Amino acid sequence: KYGGNGVHHVSVRTHVNVDPAKLKSLRQRWSVKPSEMSKKTLNPIRAIVDGMKLTPNPEKPMIALSIGDPTVFGNLPTDDTVLQAMKEAIDSHKYNGYAPSVGYQKSREVVADFYSCPEAPLDGKDVILTSGCSQAIELAISVLCNPGDNILVPRPGFSLYKTLAVSMGIQVKHYNLLPEKSWEIDLQHLESLIDDKTACLIVNNPSNPCGSVFSREHLHKILSVASRNCIPILADEIYGDMVFPGCDFQPLAPLSSDVPILSCGGLAKRWLVPGWRMGWILIHDRNDIFGTAIREGLVKLSQRILGPCTVVQGALESILNDTPPEFYQGTISFLKSNSEICYSELSTVPGLNPVMPSGAMYIMVGIEMEHFPDFQNDVEFTERLVTEQSVFCLPATAFEYPNFFRIVVTVPEEMMIEACIRIREFCARHYRPRSQDSHELDQ
Amino acid sequence: KYGGNGVHHVSVRTHVNVDPAKLKSLRQRWSVKPSEMSKKTLNPIRAIVDGMKLTPNPEKPMIALSIGDPTVFGNLPTDDTVLQAMKEAIDSHKYNGYAPSVGYQKSREVVADFYSCPEAPLDGKDVILTSGCSQAIELAISVLCNPGDNILVPRPGFSLYKTLAVSMGIQVKHYNLLPEKSWEIDLQHLESLIDDKTACLIVNNPSNPCGSVFSREHLHKILSVASRNCIPILADEIYGDMVFPGCDFQPLAPLSSDVPILSCGGLAKRWLVPGWRMGWILIHDRNDIFGTAIREGLVKLSQRILGPCTVVQGALESILNDTPPEFYQGTISFLKSNSEICYSELSTVPGLNPVMPSGAMYIMVGIEMEHFPDFQNDVEFTERLVTEQSVFCLPATAFEYPNFFRIVVTVPEEMMIEACIRIREFCARHYRPRSQDSHELDQ
Repeated sequence: KYGGNGVHHVSVRTHVNVDPAKLKSLRQRWSVKPSEMSKKTLNPIRAIVDGMKLTPNPEKPMIALSIGDPTVFGNLPTDDTVLQAMKEAIDSHKYNGYAPSVGYQKSREVVADFYSCPEAPLDGKDVILTSGCSQAIELAISVLCNPGDNILVPRPGFSLYKTLAVSMGIQVKHYNLLPEKSWEIDLQHLESLIDDKTACLIVNNPSNPCGSVFSREHLHKILSVASRNCIPILADEIYGDMVFPGCDFQPLAPLSSDVPILSCGGLAKRWLVPGWRMGWILIHDRNDIFGTAIREGLVKLSQRILGPCTVVQGALESILNDTPPEFYQGTISFLKSNSEICYSELSTVPGLNPVMPSGAMYIMVGIEMEHFPDFQNDVEFTERLVTEQSVFCLPATAFEYPNFFRIVVTVPEEMMIEACIRIREFCARHYRPRSQDSHELDQ
Repeated sequence: KYGGNGVHHVSVRTHVNVDPAKLKSLRQRWSVKPSEMSKKTLNPIRAIVDGMKLTPNPEKPMIALSIGDPTVFGNLPTDDTVLQAMKEAIDSHKYNGYAPSVGYQKSREVVADFYSCPEAPLDGKDVILTSGCSQAIELAISVLCNPGDNILVPRPGFSLYKTLAVSMGIQVKHYNLLPEKSWEIDLQHLESLIDDKTACLIVNNPSNPCGSVFSREHLHKILSVASRNCIPILADEIYGDMVFPGCDFQPLAPLSSDVPILSCGGLAKRWLVPGWRMGWILIHDRNDIFGTAIREGLVKLSQRILGPCTVVQGALESILNDTPPEFYQGTISFLKSNSEICYSELSTVPGLNPVMPSGAMYIMVGIEMEHFPDFQNDVEFTERLVTEQSVFCLPATAFEYPNFFRIVVTVPEEMMIEACIRIREFCARHYRPRSQDSHELDQ
């Protein structure tokens, strides 16, 4: 009765009687090892933090300035519009089934309209919705790079780029950011790294961990490097529009008519819901260099695990279009005020060199290690800051940038003030002016 | 003032003046090609469906029996408890920030408690929450297999296993399921495929596309093969507990004390919210064969894109613990009733051989192709079924199983009845009894 199926019949005909001796030779005991890829998936932040002895001073309550999650202290809630949009999406009963792997067409159009501008128009087909900005970055790297290629990433920079690239056998080359130039890219250094295996340049603006925001002029220069060398750009713009008053965020794509750009973003930071895992890729390709091949590649890759939660997709239209401007302004003025408190406090601490940010939610602080002989490096410095003062800042070694640490400025104001007082106390205790002797030895 | 940072200084010293001639030689024009991995990420369902000419008969409304999404017709809504749990999670304001990449500890414990049993106890550390069951399967394959290894997958079977494996350079070996034995595994064939590069056996129970449910005895035999050959199992149990009355779903893990098992599941099917992308891996390793290495590998891999939407994670406790039994029973009795209608209708159609399912939401129907000379294969058969009758069933070539097609039984009853009538009409029109002549030629 099952004669219709060719496969089945073939298989019956090709049955092989299993030789027990042969079987025995195959595998006689259990040996299940994790894959090479899993072993190569390294998270430097975890590796460093897990290796630190983080025992707070029991007499002081812990203040964590280390967590890049604006929601943890409850002082930066998302807007009610955002929550209401989710509840309406649930009540509509329309967003329980599968969406296309790249997202609902309507939701893609909503994102396209939100980010479209005359110099860089977008429509629904130019948007791919992803499970957070992390998956957006993963898809972008996956579609542009092969094992053996290299990508150019900022130093200091967000560690995920390296984590993803190395796990895929892609080499990472770090280009320097210049703290004395508000963390602009050292363009000469950047260009010197390019070779014929360079598949992608990652530009993160506004920057994690620097809080820097590039000027239009600087972005033009970056695009020149990419254009001259024919390197596509992955623009990580998850902190886009999170810039302080008086400073403008300029998205990269509208400035270029030739360089193809995959701009990665999401709801996480600006709408203060990082856990919802709603990200996107905006495909900018006005000169048709990506063509259909890269677009199709992204669609294929998106089918591996499908896209983000459909409820959040359903809520996107209202989240993007109805959230009042006061919400964004409120977040930004809080971040600016906290940044200024932190900067002005720490810039008068001998031995520390904070760099004033212009956006995002971070401040990088340089440590003049030669004045802190008690500590070998930023990791020891921040470890002891926990032991003595119960203040935890991420050592910037986690961002490939030793002798700095990163402060997250989303904590409540009084916590920020208290943390700065404790950091000052800690530095005062350990600061050693260079002695005449050692000064002479230097010369 | 920035003397503290070693990296910066080193980089300044190693600056290289860029030689324009050298640059020119690197890349003179744009050539951005999609990666090998994206090219190797193939979705057979899409490839086949996109290649079909699906033009419905304008005189008959379309009936799609092809979509494995129980929500599309609105007749199988999720329970109010599930929606209410989501709204409470939103109102709590507790689930907007980042969760750990493997999920909130509390949510992991909730899943562990739900699936724990004395023979296969689970606690929170044995659960990894993922962005849908697809990511669960992706992580499980990623942690167990290296390029060049092979995995054993069922034929017919869900195409994602092959899509994921091939994209990672892992070879796929198909073992046969036997329609005449209610789609049990051809164990001899299965064992004959094992070699020293076999990294994992995928067992899908209840089955997509077969709707079959393995007996306890058969599961024991599968475990014997795995145990004898020391092959870990990926158990795709996303349709777990979706079995018809009179049949028991037996999870694989409680039956084995030695074979290490990664059981993949999620909310998608049983709770009828596939778009929410809430999946999980249950790690069963009572003989400590995975050990900490595989667990750590899974944690590392989960950090690439982080886990599922935190709102759904927050809702999990209520979803799993408060959804009334009547909801599950209602879904199952509907699926059983529709399956029986479909089976009894089609089993009397000359030339068709439906196989009665015991669970999930599918029926496989064999086509006696020799009686349908108008069509070369199942793809042509189902294509013309659209053209003439506006009924679309997936050709089982999409599951590596030619000469069958798959019917999804989640459609409203009247639609199912109407579809069966049209299929009968279609077959009656194209059925050709084998003539005496051709019969003689056969002998």
